[in-house]
Formats: sequence, C-alpha cells, structure tokens
Amino acid sequence: MHIRVVNPNTTAAMTALIGASARAVAGPGVRVEAVTSAMGPASIESHYDEALSVPGLLAAIADGETRGIDGYVIACFGDPGLDAARELARGPVVGIAEAAMHTAALLGRGFSVVTTLDRTGGRAWDLAARYTAPGACRGVHACEIPVLELEADPHLADRVAALAGLALERDGSDVIVLGCAGMAGLCAAVSDRLGVPVVDGVSAATLMVQSLVALGLRTSQRREFAAPPPKRYTGAMATFQLESANRPVSRGSSAM
Amino acid sequence: MHIRVVNPNTTAAMTALIGASARAVAGPGVRVEAVTSAMGPASIESHYDEALSVPGLLAAIADGETRGIDGYVIACFGDPGLDAARELARGPVVGIAEAAMHTAALLGRGFSVVTTLDRTGGRAWDLAARYTAPGACRGVHACEIPVLELEADPHLADRVAALAGLALERDGSDVIVLGCAGMAGLCAAVSDRLGVPVVDGVSAATLMVQSLVALGLRTSQRREFAAPPPKRYTGAMATFQLESANRPVSRGSSAM
Amino acid sequence: MHIRVVNPNTTAAMTALIGASARAVAGPGVRVEAVTSAMGPASIESHYDEALSVPGLLAAIADGETRGIDGYVIACFGDPGLDAARELARGPVVGIAEAAMHTAALLGRGFSVVTTLDRTGGRAWDLAARYTAPGACRGVHACEIPVLELEADPHLADRVAALAGLALERDGSDVIVLGCAGMAGLCAAVSDRLGVPVVDGVSAATLMVQSLVALGLRTSQRREFAAPPPKRYTGAMATFQLESANRPVSRGSSAM
Amino acid sequence: MHIRVVNPNTTAAMTALIGASARAVAGPGVRVEAVTSAMGPASIESHYDEALSVPGLLAAIADGETRGIDGYVIACFGDPGLDAARELARGPVVGIAEAAMHTAALLGRGFSVVTTLDRTGGRAWDLAARYTAPGACRGVHACEIPVLELEADPHLADRVAALAGLALERDGSDVIVLGCAGMAGLCAAVSDRLGVPVVDGVSAATLMVQSLVALGLRTSQRREFAAPPPKRYTGAMATFQLESANRPVSRGSSAM
Amino acid sequence: MHIRVVNPNTTAAMTALIGASARAVAGPGVRVEAVTSAMGPASIESHYDEALSVPGLLAAIADGETRGIDGYVIACFGDPGLDAARELARGPVVGIAEAAMHTAALLGRGFSVVTTLDRTGGRAWDLAARYTAPGACRGVHACEIPVLELEADPHLADRVAALAGLALERDGSDVIVLGCAGMAGLCAAVSDRLGVPVVDGVSAATLMVQSLVALGLRTSQRREFAAPPPKRYTGAMATFQLESANRPVSRGSSAM
Amino acid sequence: MHIRVVNPNTTAAMTALIGASARAVAGPGVRVEAVTSAMGPASIESHYDEALSVPGLLAAIADGETRGIDGYVIACFGDPGLDAARELARGPVVGIAEAAMHTAALLGRGFSVVTTLDRTGGRAWDLAARYTAPGACRGVHACEIPVLELEADPHLADRVAALAGLALERDGSDVIVLGCAGMAGLCAAVSDRLGVPVVDGVSAATLMVQSLVALGLRTSQRREFAAPPPKRYTGAMATFQLESANRPVSRGSSAM
Repeated sequence: MHIRVVNPNTTAAMTALIGASARAVAGPGVRVEAVTSAMGPASIESHYDEALSVPGLLAAIADGETRGIDGYVIACFGDPGLDAARELARGPVVGIAEAAMHTAALLGRGFSVVTTLDRTGGRAWDLAARYTAPGACRGVHACEIPVLELEADPHLADRVAALAGLALERDGSDVIVLGCAGMAGLCAAVSDRLGVPVVDGVSAATLMVQSLVALGLRTSQRREFAAPPPKRYTGAMATFQLESANRPVSRGSSAM
Repeated sequence: MHIRVVNPNTTAAMTALIGASARAVAGPGVRVEAVTSAMGPASIESHYDEALSVPGLLAAIADGETRGIDGYVIACFGDPGLDAARELARGPVVGIAEAAMHTAALLGRGFSVVTTLDRTGGRAWDLAARYTAPGACRGVHACEIPVLELEADPHLADRVAALAGLALERDGSDVIVLGCAGMAGLCAAVSDRLGVPVVDGVSAATLMVQSLVALGLRTSQRREFAAPPPKRYTGAMATFQLESANRPVSRGSSAM
Repeated sequence: MHIRVVNPNTTAAMTALIGASARAVAGPGVRVEAVTSAMGPASIESHYDEALSVPGLLAAIADGETRGIDGYVIACFGDPGLDAARELARGPVVGIAEAAMHTAALLGRGFSVVTTLDRTGGRAWDLAARYTAPGACRGVHACEIPVLELEADPHLADRVAALAGLALERDGSDVIVLGCAGMAGLCAAVSDRLGVPVVDGVSAATLMVQSLVALGLRTSQRREFAAPPPKRYTGAMATFQLESANRPVSRGSSAM
Repeated sequence: MHIRVVNPNTTAAMTALIGASARAVAGPGVRVEAVTSAMGPASIESHYDEALSVPGLLAAIADGETRGIDGYVIACFGDPGLDAARELARGPVVGIAEAAMHTAALLGRGFSVVTTLDRTGGRAWDLAARYTAPGACRGVHACEIPVLELEADPHLADRVAALAGLALERDGSDVIVLGCAGMAGLCAAVSDRLGVPVVDGVSAATLMVQSLVALGLRTSQRREFAAPPPKRYTGAMATFQLESANRPVSRGSSAM
Repeated sequence: MHIRVVNPNTTAAMTALIGASARAVAGPGVRVEAVTSAMGPASIESHYDEALSVPGLLAAIADGETRGIDGYVIACFGDPGLDAARELARGPVVGIAEAAMHTAALLGRGFSVVTTLDRTGGRAWDLAARYTAPGACRGVHACEIPVLELEADPHLADRVAALAGLALERDGSDVIVLGCAGMAGLCAAVSDRLGVPVVDGVSAATLMVQSLVALGLRTSQRREFAAPPPKRYTGAMATFQLESANRPVSRGSSAM
Repeated sequence: MHIRVVNPNTTAAMTALIGASARAVAGPGVRVEAVTSAMGPASIESHYDEALSVPGLLAAIADGETRGIDGYVIACFGDPGLDAARELARGPVVGIAEAAMHTAALLGRGFSVVTTLDRTGGRAWDLAARYTAPGACRGVHACEIPVLELEADPHLADRVAALAGLALERDGSDVIVLGCAGMAGLCAAVSDRLGVPVVDGVSAATLMVQSLVALGLRTSQRREFAAPPPKRYTGAMATFQLESANRPVSRGSSAM
C-alpha cells in the first residue's frame, strides 16, 4: 500500500516533520511518502493562503494519480481542497482536521482545538460543523505562534500544554486536538503533562487512509464526487485542464 | 460609487449577461463594471473547477484594489473564494448565492434552489447551512443543463419554470432562487409563469453591495478577516505574494 | 419609489430620529415617510408592549396600502407584527432586526447585539434563530437604559461603545448590531471608537426595502403569506375587519 | 383551584366545545371556566387574525387576575400572546400547541400535526421549533376545512382520521396531534380508527396547568417574564395601560 | 388510578423520600406506590451504574404489569431504561429528567440543572438534547455531593441554593431543575432562597403520568415502541425472557 | 496487539461471522478474538433486548481487562453499553454503528442505513445524531428480516442491494451503511451491484480500534469516562460490583 501525505504549503522542513509523524504509525507494508507543494504560500495562516494552496495540492494529487498512489492525506488543519481532491483521486483522501476530529469523538465527550493564530479559528469551527455532531467541538484556542516559528520555539510543548490545560477547564472538554500539522510531534509531551488524550491529525489521518484502503473503500463516484467534467482551462491555470482520462497535464510535487 | 462584478469563470459571454443583470438594477450614480477572470476553467461545475477559479477571482479583486473599486460581487453561485476575497478587499464583497439566499429569506417561508447540474447540489446545501436559518432552504433541484449551454437553450425559461414549479410542490416552498449566474436573465419569465418571487443572485448581490457602500459598511478587520499576513509565495502562485501594503503583484482581469 | 417606515410605538420624537436615519441613506428618487403608530405603548420593552403595538402597526400598513406605498420598514428591534404585515401589504416589508442581522452576516464571522433592557434579550435571540445561521449571533447585551431615556443620555455613545467593546471580547464577535431603533444615530460614533462595523437596522432595512422594490420582489402570495381570509371582527378590534378587497376599514397612523 | 381557559377568538360556540373538553379531564376540586374573547376575529386563520386576537386574550387574562384565577390555558393552536400572557399573569399560562407537543413527546418517537388550513402550517412549525427537540415534529398536514366549519362537518372524524393515517405513513410518525382547538372532541374517534395516541391540546393544557398549580410552580419572575414596566398607552389600546400594580384597566372577557 | 414510582437504585431510604415527594402532589383517588429495585447498584453515578440498574428497573415494571399498574415513573435523573420500559408497559412511563425538563420549559426562557457529581453532566446534556428545544438547557452544575450523602448533609439546601444561584447568573437562566431524585425535598427551600421556580422531577413526573392516564394516553404501539418480539434469554438474564404474552418471568421489586 | 470483538447477543453462529469479518481486515500482528455474550437475548431487536444485552457485554469487557486486551469492538449496530464500556476498559472501545457512520462520512456527502427491522430505526437515528454532523445520515431503511434469519436467507445480498438501491434514490445519498452485524459479509456483493461504497461496521470498527491502539490513544480519564466509583451491587447484579481496583468480580464471556 502506498500513501501520499501532501503538505500543501511550500516549506520542506515542515514536510519532513509531517512525514516522520505519518511513518511512525503506519502499519507494516505501508509505504508513506510525504511531498511538498510545488507552488503557493510558505505557510497557511489566512483564507487567502488557504485558497492559494489548493492548486499546489491538486497538482500533487494529480501527479500521484500517475504513480499508483492508493490514498492521500492533506496535511494542513484547514483541510484545503478536500472536496476537489476527492473528485480527482481514485483512492480515499482524508484531511487532518477531519481525521483528528473524528478520532477525538471516539475518545471522550468533547474536544478542544489548540491552534496557531486566532484568525484561523473560524475555519476550525467551520470544519467542526461539517465533520462532527453539534457540541463535540467545545473550543478553539490560539497560541499566537506563527506556523513557521513553531519548530524553533524551545518552549513549544510547555506553551501548548499550558494553553491546552486552560482549554480543558474553560471548555469542559476531555480531549485535545492539535490544530496544526506543525504540532504533529507534540502529542506525547502534551498528553503526559495533562493526562488526557491528545490527537494529532497527521498520524490519525494516515491510519484512516490506511484503514480505508484495507477495507477497499474509496470516495463514492455517485453524484457529487464523480470525476469532474473535462473542460478548457486557460491562463496560469491552463496546466490543470483535465484530459479525457480526467487527468490534469500538470506535474507539480517534489517527493521527499 | 464603483462596483466590480467578477465572473470567476473565463467565458466572456457569460460576463456580458452578468453585467447586464447587474447594471439593470444599480442605482443612479453607481458604476457597475463586470470583469472576466483571466485564468481558470471556462465554467464551474465541480469542486475542482471551483477551487481552480479562485486564483483568477482573487487576481481580479487585487487588481480592483489598485483602481479604487468600492465593492465586489462574486458572480458564481458557489461563492468561490468569498472568505479570501473579504481579507483582500477594502470594501464589501458579496457572493451571489449569499445574496440570493438572504433576499429569499425576506420574501417567504422557505425557498427552493433551481440549479444546473445535480453534482453542484452539495455545495448549494453547504452555502445554505452557512447563510440561512435551518429550514429556510427547502430543496435544491437540477435541470441538468451544463452552464455553457444555458444561453443557447431556446426553451430555457420553460424548462426552468417547469422544474421550479415541481420544486414548489415537492418542497412546500414559496420562493424560487436561481442557482447559477447564467440564469440571471430568467427572473421575470419564471416569476410570471409561477406567480411567486424568483430571486437572481447577480442583481440581488449588486444591490447588497450598493447598500453596504451607502451605509459605509465593509468587512470587519477584527480577527478573522483582517488583511492576510504577507509571506513568500512560490511557483505558479508567486504572483500572488502580498507586498507589505498587502497588495498582490499580479494583475489579472480584463474589464469589459 | 415611496417607502413608509413605521415606528410601532407612539412616541413622535423617536419617529423623527428614525425618519432621519432612513432618509440619510435612501437613494435618489426614493421618498421615505416615517409614521408614528396611532395607538399602543409609548415604548416597547416587554412582550406585553410588543403584542399591543401590533394593532397600531397594522393600522399604519393598512393606511399605507390606500396611499400607494411601495414597501415598509417596521422600526422596532422586536420586529412586531412582521408576519401579519406581510400578509397585509402588497409590497415588501422588512423588520429592523431582520435587516440588521442579515446585514451583519455579510460583514464578519459573528455579531453581538447591544440593546436596551436585559428583559428584551429573549426576543432578540428568538429573532436571531429565525433569521440567521446557527452561531451568527454570538451574544445579546443590555445597557439597561430604557428606550425613552436613550435620547436624553449625554453619554449614550460612550456607554454603548463601552458595552459593545466588552461584547466583542466576551463573544469573540467582529460586528456590532444596535438592538433598538432609538440607537439609530450611534453607528458612526460607536464604529469610530471600536474599529468594527456597527449596523443600525433602520438604515439597513430602508435600503433592503429599496432594493427589493428595485428588484420587483415582494412577499410570496403562495400559501402562508397570501392575503388573510376576510371575516368578522368585533369589539375594540372591529375596525380591523378586512373588506372583500382585503383592506381594513381603520385609518390609524399620522405621517410626519 | 380555578383555571381559566381562554378562547382567543370571538365565537362562543367554540368556547363551549373547548370548555367541555377541559372540564372532562380536570381533577376533583378544580373549577374550569372557559371564556370567549371580547374583541377580535371570529376565528384565527392567518398571522393577521392571530396578531389581532392578542389584545382580547390579554384582556381576558387581565380580568382573570382580578378574580383570583390560578392558571390559564390559551385555547388556540397558534398559542397567540403566550409570552405576553406570562408577563401578565401571576399563575402559570400554557398554550394548547405547547401542551400538545410536550405531551406527544412522551408517547412516541415523533408526531404529525393535523390542522385546518395549509396557510397555518408555518406557525405550527415555528412552535414545534420553539417547544420540541429537533425531529420530534415530523409533519404538519392540513384538511383545508375552515375553523368555523369544523363543527358542522358531519364527516369530520372520518376526514381527520384519513388525513392522520396518511400523515403516519408519510412522516414515519407514531403519534397524532390535533392542530386546532375546534378539533378537541375528536381524540377518541381518531385514535380508535388508527390505533395510535391522539393528543388534543385543550385537555392536555388544562392538566398541565392543573399540575403546575399543584406543584406550586408559576412563570419565573426573573428577567424576561417579570411584570412589564408600566407606561403610557394611547388610542384604541389605552385601556391596556398597566397601573402601578401591573394590572390593566380593561375588562374584556365574558365567562360562560 | 395506580401509579408505580420505581427507584432504580437499591437504597430503600431513597425510595422513601421519592415516594413522599410523589404522594405529596398526587391527586385525590390516585394511589402512588414507590418500589425499590431488587438488584443492581446502591446509587447511580456513572454510565456503568446506570446500565446495570436497568434490569432491576425492568423487573419492577414487569412485576407492575401483573398487578394492574396504570403508569410508571422512573425516579433517577438519568432516565435509565426509559425506552425499554415503554416497550414493556401497557400504560405511560415518564422519566424524572424528562418530566423536569418539559416542566421547566413551561416556566421560563431557559433552565439550569443542579446535579450531584460532575461526571453525570454528560448524561444530563444528552437528555436535554433529546427532550428539549435547543437552548432550553443552559447549564449543568455539580455540587459534588455523592447521591447517598445528600440526605445526611445538614447544609444541603444551602449548598444547592448557592450553586443554583451561581448557575442562574452564569447561564442567564430563569428556572432551576434539581438533577437527582435524592434532591426531591429541596424545591421549596431553594425556591424560597432564590425567588425562581425550582422543579423536582419526581413530583413533576408523577403528575405527568397522572395526567396521561386521565387523558387515556399511553405509549404508541405503532413501530418502535410496540411490545418487544419474544425470544430466548440465557444466563443471568434468563428470567427476563418474555413469554408469548410479552410478560417476563421474573418478579423483582419490593413495594414499600 | 490484542483486540476483542464482543458480540452482545448470545448466538455463537453470529459471533463466528463477526470474527471472520474482523480478522479479514486486521493488520499483521494483530490478534482478533471474537467472544459471545454469556447472558441475555439471542438477538437484539428492541430497546428491551438492547438494555438486557448490556450486562453480558460489560462482563465480556471486565473479563477482557483481566486478560490484557488492548481494545474492544461492540459488535451490534445499536452500540449497546458503549458509554459504560468506556468507563470500564483501559483501552479504546468502538461501537460498530459509530465506526460505520464515521467511516461513511469520509466517503461521500451522505449515507443511508440499511437495517433489519423497522422498529430499530429510531435507535439508528439516535446514534446518527450523536456521532455525525446534521445531514450526514439521510435515511434508515428496514428489510424486515429478523437478525437470526439473515444468515439463512439465500437471497440476502439481492434483497439488501435492492433496498439499498432504493435508499440511494430516495435519500439522495451516495454511501450505504449496513445496519446490523449480521450483514457483515455483504459489503462486496452489495457494492458490486450498486457501484457505491458499502460500509460494514464490524470491519471498520476493528481497524478503528487497531488505529487507536497504534496511536497510543484511549478513552479520556478526565471527568465523565473515568473509572466508575466502586459501590455495593446486590441481587442478580451482585457480580458486577467493582472492587477497589475497579474490576468486577464476574467472569462472563466465552472466547471462540
């Protein structure tokens, strides 16, 4: 089984972290490949960034389709381009917010999300409304550390754990969801400090894709998520034009 | 007052129709300019198309910001890129689905959407959940005419009216919303046949933007929709990098 | 175009304020007429007041129907009698809470309402549930200044702005809605102090009615909001009996 | 214990039916008095009728307050004036839609409402949203018999039972709610035909009021439903002005 | 009329308290019998306790069916086994959380629940979601006194009233619901201290059952709550096997 | 890794089917053990059956805790005893309805459940409300084949596929969920006939437990799902009394 984990931003160091998290949990015989988007923003911290990360993400999926990939993880907590990716890929596609929220729902009464910037909280709430039963997501809390500064922060685990601890109290929650792919390495440290389950979407999504492939399940081709109808694409988006075989021309991700 | 109506697909004939609808209702002294996206799909009929129409839409808004535009309409019923556009524009931005649904809510108990392809129905429901009170949207019905074939269909008004009539019965609704910018010219014909209000989002959104500008209201700059933090953009998306003044480099729409 | 703004309480000084707010934003060629209810409470601060303001409101609308009015605004934040008014009027009818909430939804993630008395908060929440998507209304906050004392308060803008500032923090909101027609003049002052959009329902509703009339849209006559079936009315309500032409006998508002 | 059941329309024959239903279930020692509204419409079949029935209802409650009434039933399925009545009365007030829906929720998975005119269905749904958990009300079905013709219809039970039987099938429901006070006598006949519980709001509300009085419970005086603040009332509504003791001047119901 | 109130835990002292509360409000001619479960936990303070109280509860109901009981109250605030009990009993069955929440909804805008242990709060929220309209339950607050220590606490009324007072403030509520059968005696004391309605589910449920019996209403036999299909039961549960007459073999409650 | 799949009914033939489904998808190195409940109903087709299957289920989990089990699957589509099981087990516990619904949410816009008896549909809806976002579950459809007759039906796959095909049309769904553990073997046959994803909860839950164990995640011990407080249990339930180590005395499942 071959799973591709796509980092929709263009920062290779973050892809390395994401890939390590995914590989750490993948089962025997599962090949996990982490790729960096070939175009777009260096990090995703606004609706503008998110929208403009989608072409790079879709290019990475289109490329994967030419290489026999069995399933995909979208490794940004905004789950950018998820619906479009499902139309494009033959195998299953799972976003890390989606995976983390579904996983958290199995572990307690309600979860709190700990994320980077406050301005991304609206998107987290939108996703919670889409994925979870009402009331499952109890709060979204920002540590106000920009995405690309997470790795360099020597006190990151302490800061995130402190914020998560406050979130448990304020929200009356019992599970923590890490709201950024760049926090993927923090599960154990935060869980140890707080004594509650801490869910990282990268590893959770990797195992969800692995499970879906093992179950022989992929996105429904009935109605909404069928392959998109081919048509003319022009300008800077011309490379995304789908051929009759519903495969774009573009090649756009660099495997690491 | 200067309002820009952006057609996020690349088909100029559709822009002409959209512009005419908008100009037909704009108040005295309001200049309405309809522009065609400079990149992306010829029509928007899938999540894939919609995602890849967003760069062109954002380029048209970034360009508008250099030309003193007071407010924007996004003239595709999926409201592509609306959140990102709100971060980018100084003035108000309104999507046509958003405008049509808010307007329909003022006219009756519940509305039915009549749209093009069945596969776009999921997006219409997502938007109804985002914009309206539960129960306001009663049904989404597809005539299965592709977007670019709408204009050429000699029986379009009859077909849409027949479908809308069925929708009123099945859904127990009392208002019709036209679910595609390419249906903008059908209001009177469908309303005359059925005797109920028929809402076109293009004209409704144009007047909503006009009203917001008249009221001196624009998108809140507090938290989520503040200008996006500048950062490095690379690859085919490099032109979207925001400068310190939060203005992208790209110039990307052709006014008609 | 001729729009009638009805003040459903009997205090003419408040009608003057309301009329000024409406006229300040109306487009060229739009005649705005503000009328005071001819019967009922001097201000509306309870369910009891609201219920007993409705006959006066309906009388003002019935009178308007004999004078060629194109559309109506109900200028009390409880939107009293809105459904009945829609049955009675040929043209569109918009309540100021309805208009303010729909407008606020175009400007940010979530709004806070700042109102007069705490006891009216329940009604504001009821209306938010009716008009908006879940989560749009984030909080309702009372300054505890009675309606008829608003105008005389020399520190009104400061008090409302202070309360609104607290609301933004507590609710995590990004837009303020003024929850009383008597606050119509405060938009600029509060917005300047807080740097967020502040929505007054009177001006917003006036432009919504203006837009609906421009679009040729009125309340659906199908089912629920069709003209009410005529029947015998007796006692103090006898003047409200509808004749065959669905027009009540009563004449009940004094135009100012 | 003394319970007043108010018929908010002015048709005494209907009051007689309502009173009989209420008295048939009241416990030993409970005096049930049915009164007819002294003003307003002969039947309630529109939002207009409902709004204009409220002054008469409130007059009947204000009068009851001078006569030591312990609790009130509002005997119209739209529950007109319920909130205002709760502010006015010392004892509990229950509407018949409210009582029927709460009762139905104890008896099965979901109920269907069988009502008179289709145009009143919107109000029934509004009340279901206010009173019940989502999903409890499965459908609202109209027999299109005007309220005042119910009594004269020799096949009423058959027609209502036939409609209710269809409703059970279409809605997947297991309980029937009779959606008009004028159907109060039909419970046994419809239940016998269909073999499911059939709830009449008049009798259900009477026992709810009786129970609340027995429990020593009345409407909360904290915040929203406290006695309304006294103020000047003018014009045709002047008699509703509350004195310092929060008691209106008007006397307006005729006990039968 | 003969009502059985079942205490689903095995503590007879608590049954005595429950029985007294029920009998204090029952109408003339109504015989109220309180029974203690013959098996299971001494108190119900976890999902584990609740699940294992259900066999004893069902045994008490099966026994009641052989003795002509007209209706049942389940006297634990988790409403354990309610759905199963409705399948088993010929007459109506009401849980005390259900009764308390429906009753509270008649008395104000929103209620707060005051309960024993924090860990039971999730169940209270689940029941509120099942029984009430969204927003009716405003908060659930634990005094952290174990169920079996309630009676011995000399300051119980003070502690519960203090917590309830905080709840009213924090939740913006106007009614208190006592969230444990063991608090049944506290209504008057807490209500006197706080000046708001305080609802005890035991007395409320008793009168609801009494009303349902008076109305001739019982659980619908259509579909979900029809008598369970008989089948083989083995092991420690063998006594629960239903005979053809849908009556289990076991006899399992001791009337007090 | 050692996963125990508990069949909460007492029919060993069904346990064999369940075990085969689970083992067919488990990863290398994962030991799957299917056990039959030692007490209770032969099949679960009512709330009564479900309630009385819980003691046997909990006994099987308590026994598992003495044998080093890492995680549990509850293999009945009603997810009986799930909350109590989570309090009892050290490792994760997943119900098959829960697993199937979360999995279906990853594969399309909305799913239909195909189940055995119509009377179980209410429980399926309850679970959908608990686990999924509103609108994810589009319909529940019964084939009216009793659980224990599923295996013997020679045309089972055809009948289930025919019903599922109707469900896709009626519900506008794009994914099928099999609503009974006894249908576990039908995925491929139904999916082949209909061309949509078909989800079996037994295999889905097994991989969810496997993933949770791989991720080091278990039920939160904070608040609601902490180990239940020990107390006296009596009567037929005495063996369930928890000792200080929170381990019941009873031993009650037979591994197959």
